[in-house]
Amino acid sequence: MTDFGLRDGFVGIMKGVIAGIVPQAQLIDISHEIAAQNVAAGAWLLSTAYRYFPAGSVFLCVVDPGVGSQRRAIALEAGDWFFVGPDNGLFSYVLAEQPLRQVVALENPAYRLPAVSTTFHGRDIFAPAAAHLARGVPLSDFGPTLDPDSLQRLDLSLPRREGGRIEARVIYIDHFGNLVTSIPLALVPDLFTAPSVRLLIPGRHLTIERRQPFFAGEAGEGEPFVYSDSAGYVGVAIRNGSAAATLGIAVGEAVTLVIEEA
Amino acid sequence: MTDFGLRDGFVGIMKGVIAGIVPQAQLIDISHEIAAQNVAAGAWLLSTAYRYFPAGSVFLCVVDPGVGSQRRAIALEAGDWFFVGPDNGLFSYVLAEQPLRQVVALENPAYRLPAVSTTFHGRDIFAPAAAHLARGVPLSDFGPTLDPDSLQRLDLSLPRREGGRIEARVIYIDHFGNLVTSIPLALVPDLFTAPSVRLLIPGRHLTIERRQPFFAGEAGEGEPFVYSDSAGYVGVAIRNGSAAATLGIAVGEAVTLVIEEA
Amino acid sequence: MTDFGLRDGFVGIMKGVIAGIVPQAQLIDISHEIAAQNVAAGAWLLSTAYRYFPAGSVFLCVVDPGVGSQRRAIALEAGDWFFVGPDNGLFSYVLAEQPLRQVVALENPAYRLPAVSTTFHGRDIFAPAAAHLARGVPLSDFGPTLDPDSLQRLDLSLPRREGGRIEARVIYIDHFGNLVTSIPLALVPDLFTAPSVRLLIPGRHLTIERRQPFFAGEAGEGEPFVYSDSAGYVGVAIRNGSAAATLGIAVGEAVTLVIEEA
Repeated sequence: MTDFGLRDGFVGIMKGVIAGIVPQAQLIDISHEIAAQNVAAGAWLLSTAYRYFPAGSVFLCVVDPGVGSQRRAIALEAGDWFFVGPDNGLFSYVLAEQPLRQVVALENPAYRLPAVSTTFHGRDIFAPAAAHLARGVPLSDFGPTLDPDSLQRLDLSLPRREGGRIEARVIYIDHFGNLVTSIPLALVPDLFTAPSVRLLIPGRHLTIERRQPFFAGEAGEGEPFVYSDSAGYVGVAIRNGSAAATLGIAVGEAVTLVIEEA
Repeated sequence: MTDFGLRDGFVGIMKGVIAGIVPQAQLIDISHEIAAQNVAAGAWLLSTAYRYFPAGSVFLCVVDPGVGSQRRAIALEAGDWFFVGPDNGLFSYVLAEQPLRQVVALENPAYRLPAVSTTFHGRDIFAPAAAHLARGVPLSDFGPTLDPDSLQRLDLSLPRREGGRIEARVIYIDHFGNLVTSIPLALVPDLFTAPSVRLLIPGRHLTIERRQPFFAGEAGEGEPFVYSDSAGYVGVAIRNGSAAATLGIAVGEAVTLVIEEA
Repeated sequence: MTDFGLRDGFVGIMKGVIAGIVPQAQLIDISHEIAAQNVAAGAWLLSTAYRYFPAGSVFLCVVDPGVGSQRRAIALEAGDWFFVGPDNGLFSYVLAEQPLRQVVALENPAYRLPAVSTTFHGRDIFAPAAAHLARGVPLSDFGPTLDPDSLQRLDLSLPRREGGRIEARVIYIDHFGNLVTSIPLALVPDLFTAPSVRLLIPGRHLTIERRQPFFAGEAGEGEPFVYSDSAGYVGVAIRNGSAAATLGIAVGEAVTLVIEEA
């Protein structure tokens, strides 16, 4: 997962480096279209994906506005998986959700390319580390163990429920124009059983109603509705249309979920 | 093949699910840029591709505007290949072109993820089914056999030749701006031997001449010409340019091929 | 590597053909977003990538404005790698940088698809050739050996240093908006030791200063600086921004590097 895009060859070059170290690796792209240098977007997208990969998978993640600065390069084991990338908050959700088993700084030159550039650590540091991890090199061989408390972490701003009210925001808009809010479904176990659930978008004077998921197939065209997003968050969709375009909503917009409790 | 795009991680998540079931699978992308929820575009693109894959390949195809409704999830064997996806017409060309050997509904929970969302059946139903098929699970284990006549099929509107005249339409515009018409080459065996062949675009008052393919390399820059498209249809191209942009043509536009018969 | 884009299925079809010939091949994409029919852009991008792939890798490269004309289809071994594609200059940097061991014309019909179209040699000629090469067929089986001097080569316009002055141009703008000039770092071993280095962009009346790479992490936001690009060229970047957009520069623009020699 990177913010490199697919046009320039950066991703292919990283895979070439990996193929030279562990030719039998299965290489899977999560996304290379993370908004440029947007660590928060990358952290969130990773959080929607990693659980669906087999135990032992190595996630090579590069969204790295600090390349060339003193930010650390790290590798860590959390839950059943390994993660490699810059220490800039990219693994914040993973660290919040999974038990951290070990984290090291990538300092051993034996697991880097011979020449390390100042601008393409994906090729020179992270890809070789991920490849060596995938072929079984233990984490502790890559460099010194780090104090977990020293890791950079984003403020995830997890919302809280106060009675029937949750203040949150839009954190992602997907390819179809569906909105994803920062409200995890775990906070709203009564999303589909409460007498009524409404999402208010104060900045637009909009109110959007919950729809029972088993009715979704029959939802009217053009009518936005609140639903349970496949990543585990409260979302807003429009059947056969783009909720973001129709409602004029962007990432970051404040929303309030109002649940009429039974 | 999906309409998920490559930005959101949906495709990578599906591949993660597959890698957990059949790690040695070779994963090949046909396209994830099918126009959102455009089943007809997906059906056509699939028809240009499947014949070039080895016998036994499993095609996992998700263009699924009806996700969450009562549309069925299916898997089928047709010709030398397997196909997995929603029952919404996505396999219409395959069914028209290949002998159908068996088709089943994907109902066996053993071959789904434990939790099935209402919105991401690609991850929860279709990817696991494709993976289990690829590792050798027989079709009949996935669910009840369906009556082939019960499958959803698109109106493919295959054009007919009336003397030297074929009424058709533009069905695809590729990355280079080449137009593809709905006229299969099988309908025009004399495309390059008839004294003259012209494509009329009534809505634009345009007439485009056939060009002998062996002259294509010497075609004038900027001059549109009728040719035999690599997918097996009559097409329109411009050497080193975009026919669609130059002519101002969109998908769906009516065209008439006029063949002066020898 | 192609200019086919990822929307139309062309790339997936080529991979399907390869999978039928050499199922165990590891398939890695360098880029399919080369500007349409821009051989020079493809040649340059290939030059930034091939060295990072393992010895014996086969590079299947199709940027082919002359498809259907008399241009030759070739395969060659240069340095530690194999290359397959049209003879139109796409391998110019490779040929300038690596010893050419053998080059042949792809004429043996046994290593083509049974039917060869006039417009999609990627599928019908190049993909089968690359696949057969990958499974070990010797180069000489594909067709007659060619005279290396007969190969098409681009004018690479490698700049020369005259005292402290190098006239060059912008040859690439990457996904992040970083500019790459045609000045190889080998021509400027004193890039970071000379008292001063400035890049002049006469057409814009701009002067951009060199920045020591170990200061890059602390560079001011929005301030363009000259640096050593990861591909081995002098480049221009802006920390957390797009140099191309900020400066209004396009590929082809003339630049002059002025080095104050110690």
